Order: sequence, then C-alpha cells, then structure tokens
Amino acid sequence: MDFAPDTTTRETCDRVRAFLTEEVLPAEPVLDDELAATPDDWSFRPVVRRLQTAARERGLWNLFLPPDSPAGDRGAGLTNLQYAPVAELTGYSPRLAPVATNCAAPDTGNAELLAHFGTPEQRERWLDPLLDGTLRSAFCMTEPDVASSDATNIATSIVRDGDDYVITGRKWFATGAMNPGCGLLVVMGRTDPDGPRHRQQSIVLVPRDTPGVTVVRGLTVLGYDDRDHGGHAEIRFDGARVPAANLLGGEGEGFAMAQARLGPGRIHHCMRALGTAERAMDLVRERATRRTAFGGPLADQGVVREWLAGARVEIEALRLLVLKTAWLMDTVGTKAAMTEIQAIKIAVPRAVGQILDRAVQLFGAAGLSGDHPLAELFAGVRALRLADGPDEVHLASLGRAEARRRAPYLAPRNRTPGTAAPTPLEGDPT
Amino acid sequence: MDFAPDTTTRETCDRVRAFLTEEVLPAEPVLDDELAATPDDWSFRPVVRRLQTAARERGLWNLFLPPDSPAGDRGAGLTNLQYAPVAELTGYSPRLAPVATNCAAPDTGNAELLAHFGTPEQRERWLDPLLDGTLRSAFCMTEPDVASSDATNIATSIVRDGDDYVITGRKWFATGAMNPGCGLLVVMGRTDPDGPRHRQQSIVLVPRDTPGVTVVRGLTVLGYDDRDHGGHAEIRFDGARVPAANLLGGEGEGFAMAQARLGPGRIHHCMRALGTAERAMDLVRERATRRTAFGGPLADQGVVREWLAGARVEIEALRLLVLKTAWLMDTVGTKAAMTEIQAIKIAVPRAVGQILDRAVQLFGAAGLSGDHPLAELFAGVRALRLADGPDEVHLASLGRAEARRRAPYLAPRNRTPGTAAPTPLEGDPT
Amino acid sequence: MDFAPDTTTRETCDRVRAFLTEEVLPAEPVLDDELAATPDDWSFRPVVRRLQTAARERGLWNLFLPPDSPAGDRGAGLTNLQYAPVAELTGYSPRLAPVATNCAAPDTGNAELLAHFGTPEQRERWLDPLLDGTLRSAFCMTEPDVASSDATNIATSIVRDGDDYVITGRKWFATGAMNPGCGLLVVMGRTDPDGPRHRQQSIVLVPRDTPGVTVVRGLTVLGYDDRDHGGHAEIRFDGARVPAANLLGGEGEGFAMAQARLGPGRIHHCMRALGTAERAMDLVRERATRRTAFGGPLADQGVVREWLAGARVEIEALRLLVLKTAWLMDTVGTKAAMTEIQAIKIAVPRAVGQILDRAVQLFGAAGLSGDHPLAELFAGVRALRLADGPDEVHLASLGRAEARRRAPYLAPRNRTPGTAAPTPLEGDPT
Amino acid sequence: MDFAPDTTTRETCDRVRAFLTEEVLPAEPVLDDELAATPDDWSFRPVVRRLQTAARERGLWNLFLPPDSPAGDRGAGLTNLQYAPVAELTGYSPRLAPVATNCAAPDTGNAELLAHFGTPEQRERWLDPLLDGTLRSAFCMTEPDVASSDATNIATSIVRDGDDYVITGRKWFATGAMNPGCGLLVVMGRTDPDGPRHRQQSIVLVPRDTPGVTVVRGLTVLGYDDRDHGGHAEIRFDGARVPAANLLGGEGEGFAMAQARLGPGRIHHCMRALGTAERAMDLVRERATRRTAFGGPLADQGVVREWLAGARVEIEALRLLVLKTAWLMDTVGTKAAMTEIQAIKIAVPRAVGQILDRAVQLFGAAGLSGDHPLAELFAGVRALRLADGPDEVHLASLGRAEARRRAPYLAPRNRTPGTAAPTPLEGDPT
Repeated sequence: MDFAPDTTTRETCDRVRAFLTEEVLPAEPVLDDELAATPDDWSFRPVVRRLQTAARERGLWNLFLPPDSPAGDRGAGLTNLQYAPVAELTGYSPRLAPVATNCAAPDTGNAELLAHFGTPEQRERWLDPLLDGTLRSAFCMTEPDVASSDATNIATSIVRDGDDYVITGRKWFATGAMNPGCGLLVVMGRTDPDGPRHRQQSIVLVPRDTPGVTVVRGLTVLGYDDRDHGGHAEIRFDGARVPAANLLGGEGEGFAMAQARLGPGRIHHCMRALGTAERAMDLVRERATRRTAFGGPLADQGVVREWLAGARVEIEALRLLVLKTAWLMDTVGTKAAMTEIQAIKIAVPRAVGQILDRAVQLFGAAGLSGDHPLAELFAGVRALRLADGPDEVHLASLGRAEARRRAPYLAPRNRTPGTAAPTPLEGDPT
Repeated sequence: MDFAPDTTTRETCDRVRAFLTEEVLPAEPVLDDELAATPDDWSFRPVVRRLQTAARERGLWNLFLPPDSPAGDRGAGLTNLQYAPVAELTGYSPRLAPVATNCAAPDTGNAELLAHFGTPEQRERWLDPLLDGTLRSAFCMTEPDVASSDATNIATSIVRDGDDYVITGRKWFATGAMNPGCGLLVVMGRTDPDGPRHRQQSIVLVPRDTPGVTVVRGLTVLGYDDRDHGGHAEIRFDGARVPAANLLGGEGEGFAMAQARLGPGRIHHCMRALGTAERAMDLVRERATRRTAFGGPLADQGVVREWLAGARVEIEALRLLVLKTAWLMDTVGTKAAMTEIQAIKIAVPRAVGQILDRAVQLFGAAGLSGDHPLAELFAGVRALRLADGPDEVHLASLGRAEARRRAPYLAPRNRTPGTAAPTPLEGDPT
Repeated sequence: MDFAPDTTTRETCDRVRAFLTEEVLPAEPVLDDELAATPDDWSFRPVVRRLQTAARERGLWNLFLPPDSPAGDRGAGLTNLQYAPVAELTGYSPRLAPVATNCAAPDTGNAELLAHFGTPEQRERWLDPLLDGTLRSAFCMTEPDVASSDATNIATSIVRDGDDYVITGRKWFATGAMNPGCGLLVVMGRTDPDGPRHRQQSIVLVPRDTPGVTVVRGLTVLGYDDRDHGGHAEIRFDGARVPAANLLGGEGEGFAMAQARLGPGRIHHCMRALGTAERAMDLVRERATRRTAFGGPLADQGVVREWLAGARVEIEALRLLVLKTAWLMDTVGTKAAMTEIQAIKIAVPRAVGQILDRAVQLFGAAGLSGDHPLAELFAGVRALRLADGPDEVHLASLGRAEARRRAPYLAPRNRTPGTAAPTPLEGDPT
Repeated sequence: MDFAPDTTTRETCDRVRAFLTEEVLPAEPVLDDELAATPDDWSFRPVVRRLQTAARERGLWNLFLPPDSPAGDRGAGLTNLQYAPVAELTGYSPRLAPVATNCAAPDTGNAELLAHFGTPEQRERWLDPLLDGTLRSAFCMTEPDVASSDATNIATSIVRDGDDYVITGRKWFATGAMNPGCGLLVVMGRTDPDGPRHRQQSIVLVPRDTPGVTVVRGLTVLGYDDRDHGGHAEIRFDGARVPAANLLGGEGEGFAMAQARLGPGRIHHCMRALGTAERAMDLVRERATRRTAFGGPLADQGVVREWLAGARVEIEALRLLVLKTAWLMDTVGTKAAMTEIQAIKIAVPRAVGQILDRAVQLFGAAGLSGDHPLAELFAGVRALRLADGPDEVHLASLGRAEARRRAPYLAPRNRTPGTAAPTPLEGDPT
C-alpha cells in the first residue's frame, strides 16, 4: 500500500493547476459577462471555446479516457486512479474547467458508451467529433412521469418497424440538450416490455434534428437554467424514427450499458465535488479571516473552527475512498467496484452539500446571491444528490448487499489483485 | 394551561382555510403564467391585486396587527397567539397568501415600526397607505461590505446637515425594493459613530424617489429573483437628503427599534415556515402514495416513513414553541420573550429546511425544477436561515445567556403572568 | 390557548421543589453509602424508606393517579397535565424522587392496570398495598428469545387447566423484580396462539413466591445493576400455577391492556427525562463556569455555548409537546392521544440522550465514572430508548400513520374538545 | 498510489485471523467465567496468560514495534502501515486480542517512551520485562481536579531534592494500575511551574511500590471496572521519592514526550475501534437475519438497511484515512502526521460510537446487558472519545490550523515523500 501519487499524476496535476490559475479562474467573470450579454443563447460562449483551445495546446484534453478504453489512443493515457485527482482539480471551477478539457458530463459518459459498444460507423460518426469537441451530446433517461431511479419504470417505447426504430415518449433533465451544438441524443427506452426486468431496455442513437424530436424547453435547477453548458431539456419523442443501425449494442442491453456508463461517471462527479468543496474551504478561510463580527475575525469563533475541522476530516476520508474506488476500477473493473461506486455516490454529494451549506451560512446573504460562486455551486451539488438516482436508492441497495454479505470478517481470504477479484467492500483490513 | 385554540382563532383559521382553498391555491398557476408573460416587470401582478380584493372582502386583512398596537384599530384584532396559526396557514402558499392578506414582510414590520415610533405626520403619510395596501416599503439594513449580523458593523452614514439628514452608503437584500410600487425605504445607518455600541444607529424614512437614491439591481437567491413580490434590491445612497422630520424615533434609537421590529417578524417567519412544511408533507404524502419503485409505493419504504415520522414530531414540537412565544409576547412583551424568539429563529428554519430537503429528495429532479413548488419553497426557507442574521448568531447569543443563567432549576419562583414577568426560557416545569 | 400553569400545578411544583432541595438531593450521597455498605442487597435502603415517610407527610404521595382513575381517591387529584411538571421535577433525581413519592415505574403502571381492570378482590389484595408503598411489583413482558417489541412474538404460554392458569416461559428485564419486597409479577403471555394477532395475549397476576417461579438473576444495563430499586430480573416460569381468578381483565385482552398501561407510563418517562436533562444542564453550567482550559472558562468556548443553546431549544420544545400530550390524555383519552404519545417516546429519549452525551463529553473521564451522577443518568436514559420498545418501532408506526393520513391540511374541521375528539397530530394550526 | 496491502501485511493478517478464530474468540466466555469466579481480583486471569503463550508461539508478539524503533529488534518488524490492519483485527476482541499479543495500551505507549527516551539502565530495568510481558505499566497523566486535556493545567509537582525527585499530587484514570502485576507508573508532573507553557512538565518513572504512592481505588466507566486488564486507578502521590536517575529524558521534556507517545497510540486506538465496528456489523447482520418482527426479518426493514449501508461507508472511508496516517508516520514521521492523527482521533471514535449505538438499538435490551458483548464494547468506545483528551479539543485545534492554512489549494507544490515533508492534510489531490 502506498499513498504517494505517481509521477504522471503529480505532473498532470501541476499542469492542471497552472491552467486553472492562469486561464480558468480569470475566465470565470468573463463567462458571467458573456452570459449576461446573450441571455437567450444556450450555446457555448466564446470564452469556453478559447479555453478549449488553450487546454488542447497544453495537452489537457480528453483526460478522462483510460488507456485501456477502445478509444484510449484519443485520450491522455491516464488511468482512473491517475485521472481522479485531475478531475478533482477541475471541480474547483466546475462550470469551466471540465468543459475546457473536454471532460464534461454527459459527453464523457456518452463517449465511453460509444467507444465500448459502438459499431465502427457509429464511432466514426459520433465518437470522433465528440472527442474533437466539435459535437455535444445528451443522455435521455429520466422521465417526468415515473420514478426513473427504478430503471424498470422507464416508459418510453422503442419499437422496431421495418429497418427503423420508432421512439415515443417523454424525457427530461437531458443535460446539455438545449445547446444548439448538441447533435446527438442517447436515448434509453423499452424495446421488450415483456422481457426480464433488466433486459427490457435498449439504447438508440438519435440525431437531435430527427423529425418527431422536439426539444421542448430548458428546465431549471433551484432557479438556475445552466445555459452556459446547454441546460437541462425536456424532450418529446413523437414517433421519431431512426435507422435500425442506430441501435447501440444489442436489444435488451440498455440497462447493462447504462450501468456501465454510470460507474465512471459517478467517480468523476464525486472527484469534482471534492474539488468544489476545496473551493468552498478556500472561500470560507479567506472570508473568515477578513471579516470581523462581535469583536474578532470570524475565523476565531469556535463554531467556525469546528466546522472547518469537520469538513477537513470528511474531505480527506472521502477523497481516499474515491481514489480507492478508482484503483479498483483499474485493477478489477467497474463491475467489481460497483459497491464502492455506490458508497461514494451516497457519501460524497451529501458531505459536500453540507460543506457548501455551512459555507453559505458563513457568507450570509451574499452566499445565496448571484454575486458569489457559492450559490451556484450549492445548487449544482444539491442536484448531484439526485443525478443518476437519489442517494436513498443507492443506500437501500448497499444496505441490502451488506445485510446479505456472507463472507465473515474473519474468514480466510485470497485476494491478490490481478489473480482473483477482491470482494468489493469486504470491510476487512487487508 | 390549555392547548385548545379559542373561538376567534378557530373561526379565523376556518375562514383562511377556505380562502386558501377557494382562491389562493387556484391562483398559483395564474401567477406563474403572469410572471412568464412579463419577465421584466417587478410589480405586483394582476392576480395579486385580485386576491387582495377578495381577502379584504372576506375580512382577512392586516391580520398581523395586534389589538394593543397603536394602529390596532386598523387590524383584525388578533393577538399574536391568535395570529400565529393564521400566519402558519398563509405559509402554505407563501408567495400569495401573505401578500393577499396584507400580511407580508417587510411591510408588516415597517408598519409596526411606524405605528409604534412614527409621528402623526409620518403615520399619515406612510402607515395609512401601507395598511391600505396602496404603498409598499423596504427595510434597508444589510450591507454588502460588512458582517451586518453584528449591527455595530453598519457603515452607512446618516449625517445631520441643517434641517436635513444626508445618507451615504450601500445596502443590499432590501426585499421588495425592486417593486415600482415600493415608495418607502426604511434605512438604518450610523448617526453617532463614537457613541456607545448600541446607540450609534438611527433609522430614517427615505422616499424611494429621493435624489441620490439608486436602486441598482435585483439580487438572486439560489437563482430566484423573487420578482413576484419586488425582489431583493441593491441600493446606493450617494448623499441622499431627507428632511430631519423623516427621522424615526430619536437619534441613537435605531438598534433598539430594529430589535423591536424583528421580534414579531421572526414569529411570523417561523409560523409561515411551519405552514410551508405542512405543504411539503402534503406533497410528499401524495407523491409517495402514488409513485411506485422497486416493487411498491414509495410510502411503503421504511426510509420514507422514518422521515415522515421525524418531520411530524419536529413540526408538532416547534409549533408549540412558536405558539408559546406568541403567548409570551402577548402577556409579558417582546423584550421578555426575546430568548424564545431566538430559540424559534434558530430551530424552525433549520428543521423546515431539512424537511424540504428530504421532500426534494423524494421528488427527484422534479423537486428542484421550476415545474414544482418545492424548489422555490426550498430556496425561500434556505434564505430564512440567514434573514435577520444567520442562526449561528442567535445560537451563540442564546448559548451565552444559557451559560450565564443564574436562577437554578430548583429555586423557588414567582411568575404569575401579569404580576411579574416570567424569566424567559427558565426551563422550569411550571 | 394558555401556557400558564394553574395554581394547583404551581403550588405542587413549589412543594416538590422544596422536597427535592431539602430532602432528596442531600439523600443522594447517603444512598451511595448505603449501597456500598450492602452490595448484595436488592431491597430498598433505609434512606428510601425515610424519604417515603417524609414525602407522605408533605402530601407528596401517589401524585401520578389522575382524579378520574377508579383509584383516584388514593392519589393527589392531579390531572395528567398537572402531574407532568411534577414528574419532570422528580426526574432531577431519578433514583430517589420518584420512588420517594410512590410514583416510580413499574409500580405506577401496574397500579393503573389494577385500578382499571382489577376485580375488587385483586384490587384489595394488590392495589391497596401498592398505593400504600408496602408492596412492590414487576411487569413481565420482554422475553430474551424473541423481538418483544412486536407483541405478537410473545412466546410465554398461559394455559387454562381446570381452575388454574399454568405459565411456562422465560422473561427478562423485569424491572424491580430482584427486590425482595416485590411480591407481585404482572405477566403477559399467550392464552390463544391461534386467535387474531392482538387477541392472543392475556395478563395474569402471579405472586412472586409461586412455586415454579424462579427469579434467576439480575441483569445489568451498561454495567449498572440498579440494585437500589430492585434491578432488572430474568425470571423463569416452569409451569407456575395460579388460580383462574388471577386473570386480569378477560382472556385475549392482554395486548390492549398493555397498550393502555404504556400510554401514561411513556408520558411519565418522558417528563422525568426532561428533568434529568435539566440536571445535566445545571451540572454543565456549573462545571463550564468553574473549569478553565486553553485560556479561559469552558463556558466561553463557542462549542460549549452552541450545545447549551441547542439543548435549551430542544428541552423547551419537547416539554411543550409532552404537556400537550398530557392535556390530550385528559381531554380526549389515552387512545386518541396515542400518536402524540408515540411522538414523545421517539423524540424525548433521543434528545435527552444527546444532551447527556455531550454533558459527559464536557466532564471528561469524570463524566463516565461512578464519582459523578452523569454516568448513571446517561445509562438510564440510554435504556429508555429501548424501554417499551425501541424508538424505531414507534417511528415506523408513526410514519405509517402519517403516510396514510387522509385529512388534508386545509380541510374544514370540527374539533371542540369535549364534543368531538381531535384527530391526533393532525398537524393543523388550530 | 496503490491500495493493495503487501505480502507481509497479508500474511500477518492471515495469521492473526487464524489466531482470533482458533484461540481468542473461544476464550471470551472463558474469561467471563474466570472473572465471575474471582470478582475481587484485578490481575490477569489464567486465560490471558494462556493466550499470550499461544500468541508468542505463533510469532504474534510485540507487533506494534516498528522496525525503526530503538527497540525494533524486539518487535515483529511491522511498519505502522503494516501494523494498522493487524491492530484492527485485534479490535474484534478488544479485551483479549491486544493483550494476548502484548500490544495493549498503555504498555505499548510506555514501551515506546522507554525505547526512545530511556537510558540503557531504564530500558534494561523496565523496557525488557514490558516487552517480555512480565511487567505491566500505567501512564499517570489525567488529574481529577483540572481540565487535563490542557496539559498546562497539570498540577502534580515533581520537585528535585538532592539526588531525588519528590512527587506530590493526585492522578486518576491510570489504566491498568489496579493490576498487581503493574510495577511501573510513568508519571507526568510539573518540574518548572514558571517555565514556558510547554516546558514546565517532566516525566518520571515511579515503581508502584514506592513509599508515598497509594493506589486508592478502581474507577468505573459507565459501570464497568475493566478489572480484566487492571482497571482505571486513582493514585495519590504524597511526597513519593524516586532517584533522579528515574527522570525520563530531560527536565521540561514531558509535554513533548507525551505528545510523541500519544501519536502512535491514537492510531492503534482508531484501528482497533474499526475492528470493533466490524464486530458490531457481524453481530447485527447475524441478528437482523435471524430475528423477525412485524412480518419479516429485521434485515428486510428499510431503516436497518439504511444504517448498515451508512456504517459500511463510514468504516471504509475512515479505515483508509487511518491507513494513510500510518503511512505518513512511516514516511514523514509522527510530527508531520499530527494533523491526520488529530483527524482520525476526532472522526473514528465518533463514527464507531454511533455504529455501536445503533447496534445496541437493534439488539434491544440484550444489547445493553452483560449477556452480550455489545454493551461493554459500547462503553469502551464511548470512553475512547475522551481518552487522550475529548474530541472537541482536537477539533478546535484542527480547526485553528485549517483556518490559518496558508498554502492555497492551487499553489504549486513539491512533495516527493522522502525528499520534502508533505504538508499534512493539505487537502490537495496530489
């Protein structure tokens, strides 16, 4: 066991840190100005394009693609374990840094889907431009009318009709889909309503300009429309028709592919959330040192110190858990790491949410206002507790697994990574 | 001791309940439509005016004014204890019901200030139209550059110059001040920077169209501009000049008057918040019964039930504490009830905030969206934890008082209400 | 609504306060000495007997019996609402004050059972000496082998055999049963294993010296054997035989009677727990003022103040909820108040447990030691979270009720106490 | 970065696991029987001696001594990082496994003190028998009359008088000192009351049979006297006189040595606490699967699953934080790891305390009784929140450090372990 990051990680982090300091943080107010100047525009603003060019020149592009991905040659060659600290750093400026490095959801997840399950034609048509940053995409899973956290509730139908699939249904919270540059909708629906629970679903690739597809409107999240990165769209599919070749993977594989897709995505979300927490810590530290009330700087008040300490402990512990999860994904695979993935999905957004909540409290009204980054960070992390299903679903699932765990703590074990898969979350000290 | 509400309370509540059911709840979507139709307008929408007329006809107007107020004849004659359940009911639809009954902050607090401390001329000019609903007002206390929860940090200067006061400074989060119908700014500033800590501040009444007053912009709260009730304004005072007769009370009395003003205001906020919590409970119950996931209605899941039960216990206990506080205000006065006022200010917004947070969780993405009342309720209650100072300030103050409490729990006592002031929060069982 | 206690309450509390100050608190170290001197004795120590005589002379005896009880003439004529603050005061010294005033569990609950359901013969034989303080009793419900919080799990059999009932089974945590003065065991068991779930159980009255009854041993609670009040016994019933006349109420009525018994008992427990919390507050305040660390008294540290304030808010709110519950029991009866009874059973022991936990923390090692009252108070309140079923059971039950609640918050209502039963915990503001 | 344990760790853990399964767990009821048979005996029971022999034969002895310790040749050669999982395993049976392997506090800390700071004579006289298991020792720091968590409050005086030191004062909670086999008291006191705050204290080595030393009595912790491992003693020093050669290190070095001693001790405590948490998880899982209530096994209830999941997440995250802390101690030293040491001291006992609290709740009354290991585990972990100072002290200290942290999150850094000390808890992702 060794907690020292390797040279690649250290060097990449150094470069990302420099990029953040020299380019991204100064660009934040520019983005605000550009957004204010064109309120009805949902496309990327010039500053985003400028940052993307800069990132590319610095070799900070497609960092999320692991070397063993089928499209690994298009990435920077970072393993999940190496990428995790990088993703954390981009969470320090979550509106700009991920997109600047072409590492933003949902494009990353969609790219991985295409890389793993796409046909050569599908990859050429959609994966290449995604990795070039010339195409954006959306993932259409959540539906307004059912509890979509139970994937078997998905109601959108995908019906084979001759050489086509015909899609009918209503999706929402399709992040990025309001962006005019979003050309691809990755749509999950039911092809076989009578099949086994987790074999009813399929995924089809739907060009956004397909007849029968209506991008109805952008939804808000706690008052934010997130138009800087394409918002969250409601989309209607009224018998939209795509060629059968647009099926991703096979029929009935939708659920399994979505699960595979969400695994790394959750790691990325969690790592970025920790970077956001560090941003809050820096903001609070700076404010608490400078502001005085009731006879001294806020930083001298016991309650402020107590929460700084508590936040620090949580960040440190959860960061290690995310890193270990990334390491498991690299060594034993996403599926074997699923329990840890659930664990961080439960714990990180909650903890970071509380850190942001208390940061807001310390900033007073300013902390909730548009003048200050905290409010939007708060809203973003609050939404994270619901993205890919509410924590409670993962908590229930993890609890069931824990209740059924058979391997007693003291049982002999054999888990040399590489030779035998470690039982995830076995909870044993070796 | 008697926990049964009296006849006046019961009857008034019945009438408010009917008003809510018949008029206010159906008006909620109308307000949404009217807001969508005129996005740049910060004034009251027609539906508000219509509801005000209806409320007046039903005798539901100025309910907040207690009979012993100097303006008591303009109110409905309800004591604080009688008004508390009424205010709770209006919190069920907080954007509409309070303003419809002319019981919305900050006008209520400003009206009470004018009633108690205004000269006859001041009352005629501003109090009468406030109580008629023909004038709106704002309270200008918070400043962007200092920790305003410590009132001695207030930096805006109010300087006597001949027959005038000259005001220079910057305020923000002046709720309602974006409304073109807002004619009066109640401004707190420093007249005597060298005086004793709590005698440096004074309050002046500033017509919003006074030269030197600039309403700079509306601020957002978690992405909401709250334009339906006049938003939250940043205001600049660049040597704005008002006649000396616009001083409210005497010089140096600003802090004391503000404290007096905030007392009942906190009760009102807390009662309404409990009504908002009940709205969340109704929404959750309805959703949890109707939606199914993982094999049954959400209402059958242990975690959902656990939080419904926990929320119920908190609502019931805190409601009683708010009612007792109202009763103390009626029987021994705002000052003697200050500790209880702090207690509810600490506890209610936190508890209701958590209830809303979990309700959002149960609603999934919908709960954060603009399609659903929860998101805006959540933002409003989150802001309440900062209104009139963050909880932490009240917690620290209450903690100091508790640490210094001298009367031991078992000491003999004499506290017949009316003859001797009860020591607030003595914590003894009689 | 009126929050002022009536004259009877005030005067009784004054007398109890004097009794505590003059007699009970000075007796605490005496009890410790007497316990240390006779370690193997489980009977009442002389100091308890002396305090009982003193309490009786002061008219502080059987205070728990409400005037409308069938044995009401043996009590002090206090309603539940009047008794509640008295019970709270006795919780300030929970080992001595309740027993000194003949108001200690489980005798109170057993006395109420006998008063309500006993035959004249049963009452003469057991109720009279219980109320005279010459007999002690135990309640035998919990069993070691099943989850007894689900009463339908009860396995002890009570079989009719001719003119007798024959009892076979194993009970434990029969509080008080180690006391040689304990002459009566109130035993719940199954008479009809095939009946409807809640009609299978009956209660029989079993003299402790009945052949076949073995008081096996005293159990500990976190290391305490509680021998001052008769401990917690494991009892074996090996075909113990009692006359059929020892059946309490009718066959199949055991569950209903136990529910009725536990209602007031929970109020008493909760009120006493609040008095215990006040004891902790006094202890902490005194210590925090006197002890210094890191440059000042503990009372000046933000974290200490924060928790004092938080504890104060919780105590005040929960006290009101308990008082309201008592009032409901007086006005609409135990059954109609069952939901509130559950609510306080959930909330009070948890809150007081946390108050004690933090008090221990402030006292350091001393707080866990036998030199200080806190450790034993902590253990007692911890046990309270399990007495009469773990909180979780009540939480689940209350949550189910809340999820199923039909009356919407805004529905018209008619609930004049006396004419129509208020729907418990309706959560409406009138 | 690599999360796989090395071969030594895996093999040692396998052997400890076998020792626990084959020897220690079966010995638990034997210990209970031996304790019951000789209630007034505070020395090691035969079963402990037998286990020690067995552990020694298995090569599981003095595992805590790192190879770079001056006494490293007496240990098993495990680094802190290698020992941490071993210590966790011993926490599964905390009364027996640590002492069986000669890895129990306070002897381990005292041995390290002697190894690092003792003269050859001191080491020969006391360290050798400690490492042989033929001598026990106690650490005398806490005093009943002052807040000892602030070491500058220490009042016991150590006065040089000719060739002797004379010790006067009162200590308590000297763990192990009731054991007749305890021959050595390591006593902290003040040699220079007027020196700089952290240079006033010295440590002297006091044979327990020194005239003037009185072991007054054993103290209890939540009712437990812990007599199986020598209890917690109050000790009076009435001018006890030891040769000057018994000074450990130099005069004025007491505080610094105590800090050094507590560092690894805290790691050990935390690791063992996690093993205790795993014991609770196993117990709960077994019970929840077997017991039924309200229609199904407890393991099927949402609330049970929720807490199993939450506990699992906490255990996993905190284990990693403890392991990282051990790694830092190995690579950059105890002092540079002090912040992490504080972090785990804050977080682990709290989290494990809550896990045990909920486990007790699930077990009902049995969980608090002496029939079940949970109650004693609960008491032990509760005490851990106070051992070496209450969490609040560490929280405040960590909070102060965090508030003052100067290195911004995005600053460039150079932290190759070995060449430059990492800034502890910098919170950066590399």
